[in-house]
Amino acid sequence: MINELKKIAKQIDEIIKNDDYPSTIVPEYLRAAVKAYPERGGKRLRPALLAWCCGLCGGRTEMTLYPGAAAEIYHNWTLVHDDIIDGDDLRRGQPTTHRVLTNYALSNITSDNAIAEKFGRDMAILAGDLQQGWATAVLLKATSHGVSAPVVAALTARLQEEVGRELISGEALDVAFALRDPRRVSVGEVEQMITLKTGALLRFCAESGAAIALNTTCFESPEVKAIGDFADALGIAFQLRDDWLGIFGDTQKFGKKIGADLAERKPTVMLLKALENATPDEQQQLMALLGRDNYPSELMEQATLLFRQTGAEQYILNRITRLSDDARSILRGFPDNPYRQLLLELTDFLLSRDV
Amino acid sequence: MINELKKIAKQIDEIIKNDDYPSTIVPEYLRAAVKAYPERGGKRLRPALLAWCCGLCGGRTEMTLYPGAAAEIYHNWTLVHDDIIDGDDLRRGQPTTHRVLTNYALSNITSDNAIAEKFGRDMAILAGDLQQGWATAVLLKATSHGVSAPVVAALTARLQEEVGRELISGEALDVAFALRDPRRVSVGEVEQMITLKTGALLRFCAESGAAIALNTTCFESPEVKAIGDFADALGIAFQLRDDWLGIFGDTQKFGKKIGADLAERKPTVMLLKALENATPDEQQQLMALLGRDNYPSELMEQATLLFRQTGAEQYILNRITRLSDDARSILRGFPDNPYRQLLLELTDFLLSRDV
Repeated sequence: MINELKKIAKQIDEIIKNDDYPSTIVPEYLRAAVKAYPERGGKRLRPALLAWCCGLCGGRTEMTLYPGAAAEIYHNWTLVHDDIIDGDDLRRGQPTTHRVLTNYALSNITSDNAIAEKFGRDMAILAGDLQQGWATAVLLKATSHGVSAPVVAALTARLQEEVGRELISGEALDVAFALRDPRRVSVGEVEQMITLKTGALLRFCAESGAAIALNTTCFESPEVKAIGDFADALGIAFQLRDDWLGIFGDTQKFGKKIGADLAERKPTVMLLKALENATPDEQQQLMALLGRDNYPSELMEQATLLFRQTGAEQYILNRITRLSDDARSILRGFPDNPYRQLLLELTDFLLSRDV
Repeated sequence: MINELKKIAKQIDEIIKNDDYPSTIVPEYLRAAVKAYPERGGKRLRPALLAWCCGLCGGRTEMTLYPGAAAEIYHNWTLVHDDIIDGDDLRRGQPTTHRVLTNYALSNITSDNAIAEKFGRDMAILAGDLQQGWATAVLLKATSHGVSAPVVAALTARLQEEVGRELISGEALDVAFALRDPRRVSVGEVEQMITLKTGALLRFCAESGAAIALNTTCFESPEVKAIGDFADALGIAFQLRDDWLGIFGDTQKFGKKIGADLAERKPTVMLLKALENATPDEQQQLMALLGRDNYPSELMEQATLLFRQTGAEQYILNRITRLSDDARSILRGFPDNPYRQLLLELTDFLLSRDV
């Protein structure tokens, strides 16, 4: 599975690197900013999902390469705008887009920090905007690579309509929840947010793979819908596991991210469940753990203890197990073939990863 | 012509008001922010350009209504992001999107000004992002309103590829030029910026009208290209006239905007031409006029005198005349019909307006 994933990643890297969309962007530093994240690589899970869901339904996986590249570029504009909103400095170990552009301004335009930061942010907004256009442009190229024009039109409409709306609504809820007292956010609200913010694009990739294979424009057909439900379950389980790793993960492997959710007062499902189940005393201890500057090991031990005591850890682990069972059983409803096997392995991989 | 413009505006208002794209956006205040500018109305020049260029080429103008509404929504996302970048508080006499959302935060979420401003800006970024998706979704609906699927696909590709790239590149240049010493920006650079930032979408509207009428996907066909060149000339002339009005306009009619370009140190073509032609003494006087807090009438009199003395006003007026002659002569190359007449009247209207 990992080898197949790498093969797809290489093909996607090639398409993105050689696509001519960015070539006429001016100024040059904006062009570089537009290309940066999409070229920074990564696991390319979304293109793999597209390819293998297409293969699962009997389609030729090569047809999904342009939609796969489009999904990656689309994913990247959301990261660029998210990073501005979250004020993050690093993305995949390198400076975020707005940081790179701020640094450019400091070296070339101004020595005033505030002006440079505003310049970096403004240009990064525009870089993300350009990536939105780029994603659609690449998706539309699928008509020259084996996908029928009506299916491409349906995918484009789906991406711009449902997916964009859900994903951005999810991001907005995430921003809004972070400003609320975590004791006033419900588990249901956060699961809805995850489904929208993380799930929408994964669902799109899975459904698109099926739609391409079946040459259908109808996303309501049972097979397409079933594959979409598989992606939904996978996406939520993946996010819940991410939350779990943020507390219980191995510091060596999960790195600086241990405790980061606590530092950001992020209302994760696990935190909300812990607050919900906690005694008044435990609740007070949990609240005192939020928003600190750093999380030495004593503090993390106290946190893990509280998440265990309140049953929040067990709740999350059970929820992940149930969701991954759902995902697997949907896949088993499809006739066996090598792509079904790859998707089952991908499910195991994503839900047992420790990094 | 004005009556025809109003008729189109009414139809566009209806389509935008009744379109169901925003209905499932959450949270509610984000949905309201997405709808705000598109519903705030305006002259709807872009839809008129689409309709009349379609009519000029013998097409049924009703076919352009959805593309026209899409162009308006597309225009509006650029305004939302521009307003964030420019830090503007007002748009058409009402608070800008990020202002509305900042005020929402102050009333409902926080009493901390900095947090509220960041919230307003972040949500406004997302509102603009949603409008990009909305525009494409509306454009794609044109297939259900008389435009052939291949033409709709070509328009979508054109909007997402050339138009988006040019328009955003133009905005980026505008941001970058504002940070440079105006004596180091050239007239040619600024005209390129205007062609990109303002011209790209107008050109798209004109070309799309022709492409719809001719049912062609080829934007290189001579008729489509000629109409695009007409829009380019119109767009630059319109912008130059805007710059001229910003100095020589009637305070009563052009309102607070008189002097605003000087206050913002905006490198307009007229300013650059004045600096280029000025004696060292005049250059110093011009530079001293930039970036003030307010512009009482003595100061504006000094400014108009300097723009006259240096020949910059005459240069701009000649340039507008030449461009509008070009625009008219392109139109006269088409067979006469009522739409050619409307476009000629629109050209006169836009280039002799005093507001």
